[in-house]
Amino acid sequence: MKNISISCKYIKIKDGFWSSRQKINRTVTLDAVYNRFNDTGKISAFQCSWKPGDDERKKPHLFWDSDVAKWIEGASYILMHEKIPSLEEKIDKIVDGIDNNMTKDGYFNVYYNIFGLSGRFTDRNNHELYCAGHHFEAACAYYEATGKDKYLNLMERFADLIYKIFVEDKSAYFMTPGHPEIELALIKLYRTSKKQKYLDLCRFFVEKRGQNDKDIPLFGDLKYAYDEVPLKNAVYADGHCVRTNYLMSGVCDLAYETGDTELYEACKRVLKNAAEKRMYITGGQGSTYLGERYTSDYHLPNKTAYAETCASISLGMYAHRMELYEPDSYYGDIVERVLYNGALSGVSLDGDSFFYENPLEIRNEDYAVNYYDFEKSRHFIPRIRQQMFSCSCCPPNILRLIASIGDYIYSYSTQNGKADTLFIHQYISSSFCHEGISANINTKFPLDGAVTVKASGVKYIAVRIPYYCKKLISDTPYTVKSGYAYFDIQDIDEISFDLNLSARFVYSNTSVYDNIGKAAVMYGPAVYCAETADNESVENFFADTSLGIKITGEKFGLPEIVLSGLRQIISDELYSENKPLQIPGTLKMIPYFAFANRGEHEMITFIPVKN
Amino acid sequence: MKNISISCKYIKIKDGFWSSRQKINRTVTLDAVYNRFNDTGKISAFQCSWKPGDDERKKPHLFWDSDVAKWIEGASYILMHEKIPSLEEKIDKIVDGIDNNMTKDGYFNVYYNIFGLSGRFTDRNNHELYCAGHHFEAACAYYEATGKDKYLNLMERFADLIYKIFVEDKSAYFMTPGHPEIELALIKLYRTSKKQKYLDLCRFFVEKRGQNDKDIPLFGDLKYAYDEVPLKNAVYADGHCVRTNYLMSGVCDLAYETGDTELYEACKRVLKNAAEKRMYITGGQGSTYLGERYTSDYHLPNKTAYAETCASISLGMYAHRMELYEPDSYYGDIVERVLYNGALSGVSLDGDSFFYENPLEIRNEDYAVNYYDFEKSRHFIPRIRQQMFSCSCCPPNILRLIASIGDYIYSYSTQNGKADTLFIHQYISSSFCHEGISANINTKFPLDGAVTVKASGVKYIAVRIPYYCKKLISDTPYTVKSGYAYFDIQDIDEISFDLNLSARFVYSNTSVYDNIGKAAVMYGPAVYCAETADNESVENFFADTSLGIKITGEKFGLPEIVLSGLRQIISDELYSENKPLQIPGTLKMIPYFAFANRGEHEMITFIPVKN
Repeated sequence: MKNISISCKYIKIKDGFWSSRQKINRTVTLDAVYNRFNDTGKISAFQCSWKPGDDERKKPHLFWDSDVAKWIEGASYILMHEKIPSLEEKIDKIVDGIDNNMTKDGYFNVYYNIFGLSGRFTDRNNHELYCAGHHFEAACAYYEATGKDKYLNLMERFADLIYKIFVEDKSAYFMTPGHPEIELALIKLYRTSKKQKYLDLCRFFVEKRGQNDKDIPLFGDLKYAYDEVPLKNAVYADGHCVRTNYLMSGVCDLAYETGDTELYEACKRVLKNAAEKRMYITGGQGSTYLGERYTSDYHLPNKTAYAETCASISLGMYAHRMELYEPDSYYGDIVERVLYNGALSGVSLDGDSFFYENPLEIRNEDYAVNYYDFEKSRHFIPRIRQQMFSCSCCPPNILRLIASIGDYIYSYSTQNGKADTLFIHQYISSSFCHEGISANINTKFPLDGAVTVKASGVKYIAVRIPYYCKKLISDTPYTVKSGYAYFDIQDIDEISFDLNLSARFVYSNTSVYDNIGKAAVMYGPAVYCAETADNESVENFFADTSLGIKITGEKFGLPEIVLSGLRQIISDELYSENKPLQIPGTLKMIPYFAFANRGEHEMITFIPVKN
Repeated sequence: MKNISISCKYIKIKDGFWSSRQKINRTVTLDAVYNRFNDTGKISAFQCSWKPGDDERKKPHLFWDSDVAKWIEGASYILMHEKIPSLEEKIDKIVDGIDNNMTKDGYFNVYYNIFGLSGRFTDRNNHELYCAGHHFEAACAYYEATGKDKYLNLMERFADLIYKIFVEDKSAYFMTPGHPEIELALIKLYRTSKKQKYLDLCRFFVEKRGQNDKDIPLFGDLKYAYDEVPLKNAVYADGHCVRTNYLMSGVCDLAYETGDTELYEACKRVLKNAAEKRMYITGGQGSTYLGERYTSDYHLPNKTAYAETCASISLGMYAHRMELYEPDSYYGDIVERVLYNGALSGVSLDGDSFFYENPLEIRNEDYAVNYYDFEKSRHFIPRIRQQMFSCSCCPPNILRLIASIGDYIYSYSTQNGKADTLFIHQYISSSFCHEGISANINTKFPLDGAVTVKASGVKYIAVRIPYYCKKLISDTPYTVKSGYAYFDIQDIDEISFDLNLSARFVYSNTSVYDNIGKAAVMYGPAVYCAETADNESVENFFADTSLGIKITGEKFGLPEIVLSGLRQIISDELYSENKPLQIPGTLKMIPYFAFANRGEHEMITFIPVKN
């Protein structure tokens, strides 16, 4: 069932929704992230010259390797399509810093290299292996983009050291990473270097997890560390969302490479729990800032949603790996939900500022208490995107996601060693010519559902039928399997079909208490929201679902939507036996990903409905 | 307009709702609070013998004087009606401790007497004057109850010292109390001792507030300290709810004694803001645990309501003082709301455990995250009443409230020095004979609205017409003024009337976001709630207000109520285009004050309504 991915390196993104975003990514976000990393000492840190007495604000932190590596990875995806010498210079300088400071035995981590190597591999709560993993990913991407292998070689040395410390010597104070990520990175390193050792190291970390008494549980909480049971027995999407999603992405990669169906089934179960019980409609995850974690089934409060940008991105990575292992529209649907909602909302429309948290509701009154002495004891979700976070994993993550969006579009299966079926997982105008296959997608999706696909070098094209597409309309006959429409293109070279997009009301499960009596509005894959930027008030409106949804124009690359219903007239008394008066009214809605781009506003995603 | 209160000392509470509560208060709560104070070292602390090396859990705290004094005050109200030598013994021993440890110049505070008198009057954030105030109240009550004047004499010495330090020497590090309360206590001391000095000291604290640059703002926040403007200019119910309510109670007392209409008008404005913009339907106040404070108009979230028991009690104290100054049913309505809801919910039905916070909604899912390392960074509201709090102001406060409930029933006005009109503010079966007036109320209120009042020694009886009483039904003619029905009883000695109680839906102002599309249910003064103790689920039910409210029996001294409406069938998918199925269903409701008496349950007060 496994099929082969087409790397974004070979894919040209054509005019459309994502090419616009890539343009902003390339012209604004790339430099914005670099400049703020530079301003805050994250770039110079790689020269390992910070010392006590220097600017305290630039004192290196445990996460910094990962932040910068993710930026390098994102930059590399851009370099795959465009030669930018000044950008390579910046990266090379960072790589030189690593080279100059890597220990003889192959260790590098900004924090430990500066503050004392004796501390290395002693604290599972620290992000050492996570940082290493991001370096591995970045090194592979930079090598793929430029052919330069210095960074890659350094990281292979580092991976070799980790293999020695963990697998051979067992000399670390812990056995599996506190913050997983290295698992999927090791698979990338294995695929790039072809060295079996890295696959073995990945397998080591995966197999040791959940059966490792010696491990210090993270903050004393096995669930948080996703360390309760051996991964092959995993069922629930628990613990820190990003860590769990990265971990399970690596597990899926490992299953893909090794054919370990037990692990693959575990990946399926955990993703099912995540997507069917613990996921916001936006593809956001993490119902509380406390531990940035999964909580319990159906616990999806809107206002206090954590829904970290990285959690969405990592959910997309996880689901994408699943569709490579076994194409089923279930997975591409998740990827799509993430891409157009909870991940994309992480960056401003101008590409310059970022959300870490992506709530589904913002009410100004919750910010009324701004009492300095108590403020620190409560968590206030930012109402506008910030230029930088102290923990800034999300900005470079969204950079690399958008730069590598091509990764999510295509894959192909083989029959007797020959390309057989080209899978289209995401509807993004694009083309590629690689491994004897060429393909071309033309569409205005997500604004419009009409899609044309040309392909050669395969017998079949299988296109994902999204969950919201009641019937995929095409003049060309097709058969349906696991949510994909299979077109035989042995006699034709182009197919056209329509996903039949429409605006619709979507109801939450009745166990999601916050959404009882409410409905969300979606158009195609995009969740909508209402902001006070477009409405005098987003409160006191009840949508009348029988009046339908009106499309009034285009905004932010998608239809602008207006709901009709009843609006309550603001009442006088605090408590009254008189039911508030209701008059006909409307509510304007915009795509969720575009919220908070016009200043601080109240915002709601789930709209009360007349019942 | 002012009229004269009848002290609870002279009032006999007869069989009915409150006599049952008083019985539990006397037989359970009185000892429960004492025993837990004793177990935790609060009683022995008055011997001032704790020293480093002794049990750290019994190390005296800044609040302790106030806690114990409030218990003595409550005990004294009980002693007004019953001779209990063992109880007096306990109190006398505490008073002896004060006597033995009071400094020569008249200072006593458990904390400072033990840990160093050099610290006294140096930190406005500490609760020194608040503690003193509670001692003054307790000393007055104990003297009134027993005729013993030792405690009163000690406290007069203490008050004299405070006068000297603050008014004469101006040697304290601050000029007005951080935690007000002493203001109202000084008025009590003035009334008991007849010494003008204490009235003057009260006036000093009131007049200095809000115009006192030298004062250290509490935690840097003038609003929190209710210190932004001179009190005569006050408009908003701001800051720490209990402190503000106590303060304004004292201001109203001062206005009453001095005829200062400017201060009285300020009291009116602040109470209006509190009651019409910043009060839960239960009479609870404080929309956040952050600072236990008033936040902004209409910000009244249900789940995170702080609504401290002491805040409700102090609001009742404040409103009661207002009705003595100028009878208007507006005030008695507030007192009644507090008594039957937000104050009474502070104690369990068995009198043994207490709520500090009284939320209007409890959902178990919010407690799912119980991750030890992060727990301390979030506030979890207890779901069942506790036997003791580290800061245990509420248990003795509810003790003294119930013991002194008689205070809230009657007052009388005079004409040419003679008693003229007897006011009935609260409908509590009771009688008194004092100052040439005798009166007798017979009623099953709040279960039933039929009331009979007998009185002699006055020309008129004025009974409060509650806001929910559309028409007060009586065979005896009456005239209405400021919400009171005035009966001329010069030719009759008994009047009967009916308040015409009924169950009803009550809607919040449309600006209370949490309650949009919902309604509360009330019967007479009592707010209702639905608990999973009586319902399989309190979620997914929409009340059909057109079907009315069914009374199915009696529970907790009030009608048991059942709502009819639609219940949603639990759905499968997390998100679906299918609206949840609804079938006819019911919801059982009980009086709010009785919630959380049958274990931990989900609870809602505002019920979604079919709209």
